[in-house]
Amino acid sequence: MTERLVVIGGDAAGMSAASQARRRRPVDDLEIIAFERSNWVSYSACGEPYHVAGYVERLESLVARTPQQFGAMDIDVRTRHEVTEVDLARRVVVARDLEEGRNFFTGFDQLMIATGAKPLRPGIAGVDLDGVHELRTLDDASQLRQIADSRKGNVVVVGGGYIGLEAAEAFHIQGWNVTVVTSGRRVLDRTLHSDLGQKVVDAMRRVGIDVVLGTRVECINGTDQVESVGCTDATYRADVVVLGLGSEPEVELARAAGIAVGPTGAIAVDDHQRTGSSGVWSAGDCAEAMHRVTGKPVNIHLGTIANKAGRVAGINLGGDDAVFPGVLGTAITKICDTEVSSTGLRLIEAQAEGFDAVEGRATGTTTAGYYPTASEITISTVAERRTGRIIGAEIVGGSGAAKRIDVFATAIWSNMTVQDLAWVDLAYAPPFSGVWDLIHISARNAARLALR
Amino acid sequence: MTERLVVIGGDAAGMSAASQARRRRPVDDLEIIAFERSNWVSYSACGEPYHVAGYVERLESLVARTPQQFGAMDIDVRTRHEVTEVDLARRVVVARDLEEGRNFFTGFDQLMIATGAKPLRPGIAGVDLDGVHELRTLDDASQLRQIADSRKGNVVVVGGGYIGLEAAEAFHIQGWNVTVVTSGRRVLDRTLHSDLGQKVVDAMRRVGIDVVLGTRVECINGTDQVESVGCTDATYRADVVVLGLGSEPEVELARAAGIAVGPTGAIAVDDHQRTGSSGVWSAGDCAEAMHRVTGKPVNIHLGTIANKAGRVAGINLGGDDAVFPGVLGTAITKICDTEVSSTGLRLIEAQAEGFDAVEGRATGTTTAGYYPTASEITISTVAERRTGRIIGAEIVGGSGAAKRIDVFATAIWSNMTVQDLAWVDLAYAPPFSGVWDLIHISARNAARLALR
Repeated sequence: MTERLVVIGGDAAGMSAASQARRRRPVDDLEIIAFERSNWVSYSACGEPYHVAGYVERLESLVARTPQQFGAMDIDVRTRHEVTEVDLARRVVVARDLEEGRNFFTGFDQLMIATGAKPLRPGIAGVDLDGVHELRTLDDASQLRQIADSRKGNVVVVGGGYIGLEAAEAFHIQGWNVTVVTSGRRVLDRTLHSDLGQKVVDAMRRVGIDVVLGTRVECINGTDQVESVGCTDATYRADVVVLGLGSEPEVELARAAGIAVGPTGAIAVDDHQRTGSSGVWSAGDCAEAMHRVTGKPVNIHLGTIANKAGRVAGINLGGDDAVFPGVLGTAITKICDTEVSSTGLRLIEAQAEGFDAVEGRATGTTTAGYYPTASEITISTVAERRTGRIIGAEIVGGSGAAKRIDVFATAIWSNMTVQDLAWVDLAYAPPFSGVWDLIHISARNAARLALR
Repeated sequence: MTERLVVIGGDAAGMSAASQARRRRPVDDLEIIAFERSNWVSYSACGEPYHVAGYVERLESLVARTPQQFGAMDIDVRTRHEVTEVDLARRVVVARDLEEGRNFFTGFDQLMIATGAKPLRPGIAGVDLDGVHELRTLDDASQLRQIADSRKGNVVVVGGGYIGLEAAEAFHIQGWNVTVVTSGRRVLDRTLHSDLGQKVVDAMRRVGIDVVLGTRVECINGTDQVESVGCTDATYRADVVVLGLGSEPEVELARAAGIAVGPTGAIAVDDHQRTGSSGVWSAGDCAEAMHRVTGKPVNIHLGTIANKAGRVAGINLGGDDAVFPGVLGTAITKICDTEVSSTGLRLIEAQAEGFDAVEGRATGTTTAGYYPTASEITISTVAERRTGRIIGAEIVGGSGAAKRIDVFATAIWSNMTVQDLAWVDLAYAPPFSGVWDLIHISARNAARLALR
C-alpha cells in the first residue's frame, strides 16, 4: 500500500528529507507532497546578500533545484501553499492555496515539519512603513537588489549579526551610505569574543560603513515611506531600513497540533529527527539539535544543520537508518576584508555551562610572515582545564584565516585535546601558513593554561 | 656541574632543539654550541622560491633568527663550521672552521645531530658546469635570484617535485622561458594520484611553462657554461639548469660514528628523539619519524616535521618530557593558480602497506557554485574497507582548496572514519564552500565504497 509523506516547508531541511526519502522509496511506495508558502523552494538564503551586492547576478543562481526538477523526481511541490493546520488524530493537514484563496485537506501517513524560522521584528512604531525590509526570502533579496541598483541613498541596518553585516556590506558595495545600528557593545556578539568582534567593526569602518554600537532603535519615522530611524543616541536618515535582528523558530503550527516543543522553544526531536508524535518528523531551523559539547538541545539557524538534519530525516523516512550526530554551531562569514568564524562554545558560554574553561589566544599571520599576502589572524581556543578537551574556537583575520575553523570542528568532534592538536601534522608552505600554523600556537597556549 | 650540548646543523631541527633546551636550562646548567656549515641558521628553505620569484624582496626575511639573536639567548652559534667527525667514546666532535681552515675538538655531554638532507644529483656529464644550480640553501636562492633578475633566457628545471615546480614558476614569473623535464608520467607523482598531478601540469602549461613528462636527462652540455640539456626525447636549450631531484638524509657523520641508521636510511630515533647511542639525539631531515597510519618509520623531508621533532628533542634535553606523536607527511603547495595538498597514504601506498583500501573522489567548487570566485576543487579520500578508517587524502584546486587538507590530517590523527567525517559540522558561507563542503561529499563517497 502506498504511503504519503507530506512535507511542510520547501527549503533545505524539507527538500533534503524529500529527496533522500525518494531515493530509497519509489513513488508507488511513497507519495511525496511538499507545501511551500513562498514562490521558491530549495534556495540558498546565505547567498542573498551577494545577489544584493551584485556579485551574483541572477537570483535563480541561488536556487539549488526548482519545483519542476523536483517534479521530475516524483516529488510534488506546491509553492504558494501554506499549511494552516495539522490534525494528527485524523492524519490530515489543511493547506491554503495562496493564489486561488481556497483551503483543502491533504491526508498523510508521514509528516515532515520544516517550517524554518521567522525574523524577529522590533515592537516599535514604523516597522511596517515602505522601505523597511528584511533579508530572508529570495523575494526580499530580489526587492533589495532592485532598490540598491535603481538609486543610491542612505540605508540603516538594524542589528549586528551575520545577516545584518552582510546586508550592510552589500549596500556599501552598491554605493550606498550605510549605517549599522546595534544594541550590542560589539558586532557578532552572539558568536565572537567581544574584542574579536571589534576587529570586524574596524574593518567596516575602514571602508566607510558607519557602525553605531550600544544604541537602541526606538522608532522608525516616515509618512508612507521610511525617512529616518530614531535611536537612543541619534536619529539616522534612511531611505531604506534592513532589519537583521535574528530569527526564532516557526513552531505555531506544530504547537497547535500538540507536537512537543523543547526547552529552546523549537520542536523537540530525537537523533533520528522524530518528534514526540508518531510518524511526525522535523528538522531545520524549527527543530532542536543536540550540541555535541554540552549534550543539550540547541536551536541554531544554519543551513548546514538544516541540510544535514533534513538528510537524516529523509534517510530514515526512506527506510534506512541514519543518526544525526549533533552540532557545534560552526559558522563563518566574510565582512569586507575580514573573515570570521567560530565553533563550539565561547569562553563565557563554556563557563555558563559549568565548564572550568580556559582560553588560549594567538595572533600571527595567515601566511608566512614574509609572504606578500600575509595578513593578521587571531585564533582563540577554548579548552577544559585539566583534561585539555577542546570545547570551542574563534578565528578573525584576513584572506585564508577563517576556514581553519574546520580543523577545530573536526578536533572537537573527535574529543581531541589541545595537547594533541598542538602537534597535528598540519600543512605548511609559505603561501598558506607559518611552519607552525597559528592553530598549533593557539592550542599550545591553551594547553599551557589548561594544564597549569 | 655544567653540561655541554653540541648541536650539529643550525636549521629548523637543530635550532628548535637548542631553543627549547635553553628555555628550560640556564647557561650555568647547560652550555649550548651549534655548528653550521653554511652562512645561515634557522632559515625557511620553503620560502626560497618566493625570493627567486621576486615576491620576497629581502633574503634576510627568510631568516627566523640570526646567530646574533641566538647569541643573546646564550646559544653559541658557529656558522661556516663543519663537524667532520664524532667520537662517541671520547665525547668529542671535530669541527672545521671553514673560513680559517683549521680543525679543533669540542667536547660534549649531549649531542644533537641535525645534519638535514642533501640534494640528489644525477650521475651524468655536465652537472658541475657553471649555470647548473640547486635550490636548497639561502646562498642558492640568492644566486638564482640575481641570475633571474639580471637577464632573461631559458631555464630547464630537472624534476617534477615540489621544489622543482616552485622553481619553475619562480623563473616564469621573472620572465624566463621555462621547461620542466621529469621522468615521471606526471608531476608531484610521489604525493599525488596520477590524474590529479595532471591538473598541475595543465595549470603550468596554461601560463606557458613547458612541461615534458616521461623523459630522462642524459647529459648537460656546454663548455664552461651550460648550454643545453640532453634528454631522451630531445635537447633543450638552457642558460640555467635547476636540479630538483629530491634529497636524501645526510647521515655519513652519524654512520661513521656508529650511530644506528634505520630501514629508511635515516637515523633511527625513539619517540623522544633519542638515537640508539646514549646522550645522542636527532631530528629533522636526517632522522626517521613514525608514520601514524602505518606505525612504521619514514624519512620525509619537511620543515614542519623538523620543527616539531627538534622541539621535542629540546624539551627532553631541557629536562621535561615530550613525546613526538608521529607524522602523516602532510604537504601543500601552490603552483601557478593551482593549489595542491596531501596527507597520509595514497591509494597505491595504502595497498602496498597491506590495507584493503578504497578511494572516494569528489569534484566541485571551492566556494558556492554561484559565487564569483568559485573554482574547481577535487578531493580524494582514501579509507580502509569495512572500518572506514581514513588513511589518506589529496586535494587539487583553485584558491582556498588545499588548506582543507588540515581537516583530513586532524581526522586521521584521531582515527576518524569517513562515516564520521561525512557529518562533521564544518563551516559554510558562500565565499568559502558549498553547504556541504566537498570534504563531506568526498568522505561520503569513500564511505559508500568502504562499507559496501
